[in-house]
Amino acid sequence: MNHKELISKLALRTNLPKTEVEALLDATSIIVKEQLLEGKIIGIQSFGSFEVRKKEERLSVHPATQIRTLIPPKLVVNFKQSNILKDKLNEIKL
Amino acid sequence: MNHKELISKLALRTNLPKTEVEALLDATSIIVKEQLLEGKIIGIQSFGSFEVRKKEERLSVHPATQIRTLIPPKLVVNFKQSNILKDKLNEIKL
Repeated sequence: MNHKELISKLALRTNLPKTEVEALLDATSIIVKEQLLEGKIIGIQSFGSFEVRKKEERLSVHPATQIRTLIPPKLVVNFKQSNILKDKLNEIKL
Repeated sequence: MNHKELISKLALRTNLPKTEVEALLDATSIIVKEQLLEGKIIGIQSFGSFEVRKKEERLSVHPATQIRTLIPPKLVVNFKQSNILKDKLNEIKL
């Protein structure tokens, strides 16, 4: 499901105009990004939380040539599912 | 930033009533969860995508007692940040 399909589905379910749904979704995305860039955790009820984590620099060794390369540190967004979501997922028979 | 603070900030920025913001945020969370439970990927523009991944069962060995335990397979929600978000994050000097 892409962005456009999500907007259509949300408009249908909430009875709100698509433009409003889109504006709100964009604002949510912007605020969450701002918070992440400031290094803050954002929690979304019964869904999960987002947090920026630093991956430390590391030495990578090419398996064939044995050439070593230093991979610089980088920031990644980490998502942690809520317990509610976790339980729902694991009701599914594997 | 928790759920309540996010709703306040969104209401302020979009000039929409808090009730409407909350209804829409809840609907988003429900739709995303529904899609995930059906095993579908959901993409949110310029932010990232969510997907359910299966973690295979594995044998865990207790370091002190050497007792082996079979950890059953489980489903976890995986978030992959978009390239836009990745680039923004890595503009930050580490």
